[in-house]
Amino acid sequence: MSLVVVGSVAYDGVETPHGRVERMLGGSCTYAALAASFFAEVGIVAVVGEDFDQADYDLLASRSIDLAGLERVPGKTFYWSGVYSPDMNDRTTLRTDLNVFAGFNPKLPERYRGQSYLLLGNIQPGLQRAVRAQMLAPKLVGGDTMNYWIRETREELLETLQDWDFLLINDSEARQLSGHHNLKRAAQAIFRMGPRTLVIKRGEHGAILFRPEGHFIVPGYLLEDVFDPTGAGDAFAGGFFGYLAGLGLDLQDESADPKELRRAVIYGSVMGSFCCERFGVDRFRTLTRAEIDARYNEFRQFTEF
Amino acid sequence: MSLVVVGSVAYDGVETPHGRVERMLGGSCTYAALAASFFAEVGIVAVVGEDFDQADYDLLASRSIDLAGLERVPGKTFYWSGVYSPDMNDRTTLRTDLNVFAGFNPKLPERYRGQSYLLLGNIQPGLQRAVRAQMLAPKLVGGDTMNYWIRETREELLETLQDWDFLLINDSEARQLSGHHNLKRAAQAIFRMGPRTLVIKRGEHGAILFRPEGHFIVPGYLLEDVFDPTGAGDAFAGGFFGYLAGLGLDLQDESADPKELRRAVIYGSVMGSFCCERFGVDRFRTLTRAEIDARYNEFRQFTEF
Repeated sequence: MSLVVVGSVAYDGVETPHGRVERMLGGSCTYAALAASFFAEVGIVAVVGEDFDQADYDLLASRSIDLAGLERVPGKTFYWSGVYSPDMNDRTTLRTDLNVFAGFNPKLPERYRGQSYLLLGNIQPGLQRAVRAQMLAPKLVGGDTMNYWIRETREELLETLQDWDFLLINDSEARQLSGHHNLKRAAQAIFRMGPRTLVIKRGEHGAILFRPEGHFIVPGYLLEDVFDPTGAGDAFAGGFFGYLAGLGLDLQDESADPKELRRAVIYGSVMGSFCCERFGVDRFRTLTRAEIDARYNEFRQFTEF
Repeated sequence: MSLVVVGSVAYDGVETPHGRVERMLGGSCTYAALAASFFAEVGIVAVVGEDFDQADYDLLASRSIDLAGLERVPGKTFYWSGVYSPDMNDRTTLRTDLNVFAGFNPKLPERYRGQSYLLLGNIQPGLQRAVRAQMLAPKLVGGDTMNYWIRETREELLETLQDWDFLLINDSEARQLSGHHNLKRAAQAIFRMGPRTLVIKRGEHGAILFRPEGHFIVPGYLLEDVFDPTGAGDAFAGGFFGYLAGLGLDLQDESADPKELRRAVIYGSVMGSFCCERFGVDRFRTLTRAEIDARYNEFRQFTEF
C-alpha cells in the first residue's frame, strides 16, 4: 500500500433527471479510494455504523483496498440525500444525518503511518491536520475542503493548509478562500497559504492545474449522458492522486517530469467522467484499466492541435 | 481580397465593472472584420448613417479592409447599449436603436461576388440567404445566428442553414436550435440541417469544434482582466474564418489537413481573448501578428500533456 485516503464513507440518497436511488454507498473517501485503486495500493481511514453492509465491504475489498482503518462503531452510518437540478449543475441537500461521522476521530493503523501519499477528503480541517500529524514522513500530502470550512473555520483551515503540497477545490471555493474572483490571482494567493500545486475543478468545464511555473487547462469530457454527478469531484481526486502515487512521483525531486502532474489531471478527469455514467459508485464495479487508458487517449485526441 | 464579412457596423454604449463608454465603434461585422484582417484580405458589407465618424472609417481602412460594401445612407448608425453583470457572464440590454440598420438590404459590390469565403454575421436569416445568393461559387460559407431568429424565424433560418458549411453559435443557441441539451446530440442534429462544421462558443470556457468525424475542445484563455467582453464572439468568428481564408482552405478538398480547422479554432480563441482586454475594438488598434502567434503558442503550452 502506498496511498492513504481519509474522508467519509456514507450512504447517499440521490435523485437526478435519470432516476432516484434511496440508499447507496457513497462518501468522499469511498469515491476517492475506488478511483485511486486503479492506479495504486490504497488504504482508507473512515468510520461506519453497525448498518454498514457486508456487500459494501466486499466491493472495497474487491478493489484490494486496505480496510484496516475503516472503523465500525455503534450507531448508523453517515447519511446524505439530495436532488439535482434538471441540467445537473446544481443540487439541493434534502437530508444530512451525520450519525457516527459526528464522532469521527481518525486514527491511522500502524502500517499506514510510514506511507508516502496522503489524500485528505473534505472533513473538518482540524481532523485533517491531526491525520497529517500521524504520518511519519509523507512525500505528498493534499486534499479537498469546502465552503463551510472556508467560512466557519478559516483560521484552522489556513493552519492546516500550511503543510499541504496540493489543494483540490472547485472554482467558487478557490474564489472564496483567496478573496480573488480571477482564478490566476486566486492561485497566487493560495500558493502563499502553503500548497504549491492547486487543482481547480470546474465540473463539466474540466479542470485547471496551477503551479508557480505555469498552468495547465483541460476541458471536460463530453459525456453522452450524465446519470449522476455525485462523487465525481472525489473520483477526480482519487484518479489524480492515485496516478501520482502509482508512479511514486516526488515533487521535491528536481528530475521528476513536470508533465506527470498534467497527466495526473487527465487521469482525474477520466475517473470523474466515468463516475457520472452510472448512479453512485456503480461504474467502478465494472471499470477496467483498459477503458481508463482508452479514455485518456480520447482526451489527447480531442485536445491536440 | 478573399473574405467577405457581412453584418452590423454600430455604435455601442457599454458598462462593465471596469468602466463605462458612452459611444464607441462596434457591431458584429466590425469585430469580425478587424479580427480577420490579421489573417486575410477582408471586404465588408454593412450600412452606416451620416453620423459615422471619419476616424472609424480610418481605423477599418488602416487594417486594409475593403469598404466598397460599406453603404452610407441618410439617418443614424445602429446604436446598442448594455450593462454587464459583476462577473461579466451576463449582460442586460439598455437600448437598441436599429436606425439605418432597419432598412439594411445588403448588396455585394461586383468585385466581392467572385470571392471564396463568406462570413455572415448575426442578421435576419432571409438577408443572410440573399447575400449568399449574390456570391458566384464560394468555397466556404458560414456564420452566426441568435436566439431571436431561432425562435421567431425558424423556418427561414433552417432554409438558410442548408447552404452553409459551418455554423458558429453559443451553447444555449445550439441547444435551442437542435432541441437537445446534450451538446454531442445537438451537433448531430445540426449536421442534418446542413452545416458539417459546428463551432460552439462557450465564453470563458472556450469552444468546441464538432465535425462528423469527431470533436475538438479548447478551454478558454485565462485573462488577467476582462475589461469588456463585447464583440468577443464576433472576434472569435473573424479569427477562425480569417485563418481559414488566409490558408485558402477548401473543406471539399480531401487532401486538406483536418488539423487546420482545430488551429482555426485556436486563432478564433486568441482573437476573442484579445478583444476582451480593452473596451470595444481598442485592442485591435495596437495588436500585432507577433502577439497573436505568441498567444497561439501559449494555448499549446497550457493544453499539452
